[in-house]
Amino acid sequence: MTTTSDLYPVSRLAAVQQATAAAGIDALLLTPGPDLRYVSGYEALPLERLTCLVVPASGEPFMMVPRLELPAAQASPAARLGLEFVAWDETDDPYAMVAARLGAVRTVGLADRMWALASLRFRAAMPGAEQVLAGSVLRRLRMRKSPAEVAALREAGQAIDTVHRQVPALLKAGRTEREVGRDLHDAILAAGHTTVDFVIVGSGPNGASPHHELSDRVIQAGEPVVVDIGGQLPSGYCSDSTRTYCVGEPPADFAAYYAVLQRAQEAACAAVRPGVPCEAVDAAAREVIAQAGYGEYFIHRTGHGIGIETHEEPYIVAGNAEPLEPGMAFSVEPGIYLPGRHGARIEDIVVCTEGGGERLNAVPRELIII
Amino acid sequence: MTTTSDLYPVSRLAAVQQATAAAGIDALLLTPGPDLRYVSGYEALPLERLTCLVVPASGEPFMMVPRLELPAAQASPAARLGLEFVAWDETDDPYAMVAARLGAVRTVGLADRMWALASLRFRAAMPGAEQVLAGSVLRRLRMRKSPAEVAALREAGQAIDTVHRQVPALLKAGRTEREVGRDLHDAILAAGHTTVDFVIVGSGPNGASPHHELSDRVIQAGEPVVVDIGGQLPSGYCSDSTRTYCVGEPPADFAAYYAVLQRAQEAACAAVRPGVPCEAVDAAAREVIAQAGYGEYFIHRTGHGIGIETHEEPYIVAGNAEPLEPGMAFSVEPGIYLPGRHGARIEDIVVCTEGGGERLNAVPRELIII
Repeated sequence: MTTTSDLYPVSRLAAVQQATAAAGIDALLLTPGPDLRYVSGYEALPLERLTCLVVPASGEPFMMVPRLELPAAQASPAARLGLEFVAWDETDDPYAMVAARLGAVRTVGLADRMWALASLRFRAAMPGAEQVLAGSVLRRLRMRKSPAEVAALREAGQAIDTVHRQVPALLKAGRTEREVGRDLHDAILAAGHTTVDFVIVGSGPNGASPHHELSDRVIQAGEPVVVDIGGQLPSGYCSDSTRTYCVGEPPADFAAYYAVLQRAQEAACAAVRPGVPCEAVDAAAREVIAQAGYGEYFIHRTGHGIGIETHEEPYIVAGNAEPLEPGMAFSVEPGIYLPGRHGARIEDIVVCTEGGGERLNAVPRELIII
Repeated sequence: MTTTSDLYPVSRLAAVQQATAAAGIDALLLTPGPDLRYVSGYEALPLERLTCLVVPASGEPFMMVPRLELPAAQASPAARLGLEFVAWDETDDPYAMVAARLGAVRTVGLADRMWALASLRFRAAMPGAEQVLAGSVLRRLRMRKSPAEVAALREAGQAIDTVHRQVPALLKAGRTEREVGRDLHDAILAAGHTTVDFVIVGSGPNGASPHHELSDRVIQAGEPVVVDIGGQLPSGYCSDSTRTYCVGEPPADFAAYYAVLQRAQEAACAAVRPGVPCEAVDAAAREVIAQAGYGEYFIHRTGHGIGIETHEEPYIVAGNAEPLEPGMAFSVEPGIYLPGRHGARIEDIVVCTEGGGERLNAVPRELIII
């Protein structure tokens, strides 16, 4: 069982501080969201009142906290870090307080998800400071998962696998996507997730829209159905897995391109090893699909990094020359989509290891005929 | 029954465009979140791929959409607006595409919740443009609710009232806050909400922390319990209501300050009418509490606006001289908190009308002894 201290080690703050200094950034400003959680373990509510972990390149980190969030902050994993909580009152200006404490700064790194509500106020409070993304510092750390993080992703993979194993019992001709989706929602929670991040049930033509979610469409016999599901575990780490099902015998042309897709997904997974650029994993899938004549029907990148966000770096996409390193975790999810007809996608989470790649999902990838 | 077209009228886009021009802003850039939903009705997923409604002060609005979100955008209420959807592909730079379409601009208004991930890329793509908050344009529109919006908030108030009516059956000595919270979570969904935004069950000393959520603390006989709950309805409009309960007979000092609190909440509600500054509503509650000697125990503002966000303008806080206008909707929620002992809060949503204020919650405000 991985603990908070395994996943969000106290030592991380010092590592972040060093990386901030090395990047020539004077301070990171981390408002609620994944960046703050990664550094401190604190899952703060995103509110209009400023909560902000300030990590200066040198000197003492501190956390601005609205006075009425102080008990929550003190009860959170951030309390382990031994930093000062600076409580501000309803009529204080917390942005000016941060600026005054930091003094003269040339460059500040903003949490990637910082709201404009905060970033523009920081700009006004520190007009001389260039704003860059904290991600420019944190991405290198966040991309390479520690063994504890890989264990948390493995646990997430097993959790979502148990849900996929229930799909054949839920998908039936005559049910609507929404009815199936509701059952999947409950099953995702029952499998140990704390939140359901998405439930895609794309039947027939809806399967040709990769980000279709749910509709009142009634599933018909003989139709392929794309099921893409995921959520977040109490650890903060996310699951994400897609399988394609067919309610009865599939159309012949569908079965043909599904076989191509499965080969493409295998090829992309097989391409994973340290040193290989992200775009080469994308190309490995794309080549198989293009050579079979379906290139124009694979309309999205092959994958996205995953961790405490469902979508994070590295992105498995043409143009991304970032070389894979052990610990990088991402989806491999090529798809083929015939507009107006049907579509298919196969998605596993893969972690780059010293020797290649490890898949964190174990449900069979063959077309599942119900 | 209010419809999408009542709540998010097609005419709003032109009104927003006029207000943008009047504010001297060249274009609004609205990424997924409440600002985008308010203007277009589109509840887009917040993703790293850019979706952005661009509203120029003059000229044709358009929406940047990742190609694989195009079917979702086309199926959304935004399709009613008759604007162009500009689909971008995985290897395009959508920020540069927006900049090229807009041409020379001096000032752009960013959605208040736009991520730094997007705002800094827009800054790089439009280095000459000053970034301000879209809220500077939209706040005046969003603050004044239309009759359809007030109806949606009234519906939300009734929904959360049905949950508060179930609390006496759920709160029992010997149960934990978390057990009660789980039941309330289910009851909030059963009452018609699509999401549960927060469930606060603060028993005994936890009631003295206004934003305490849930813990494994076992509720004891004779303890006051603060229950603050809310969620979002399918309309997009939010509920938020607090009542304080006591499991058995309350401590004598608690009963004394609860009576003060109830008078304070009444006084603040009675102060609501057009032309009164927001801070005067805050002062009306604060005065009653201070005169009774509890001033230092009322540690937060009196309220916040509510609509498609649980917290939005206008804020009912000292220093906010904004005069109330008919249609403004906000919480009135004074509290008294004795650290380490117990606390109490009473919260209703109030809409400013021509003649005064209308409360949208109807559950009795007396201390509820179970």
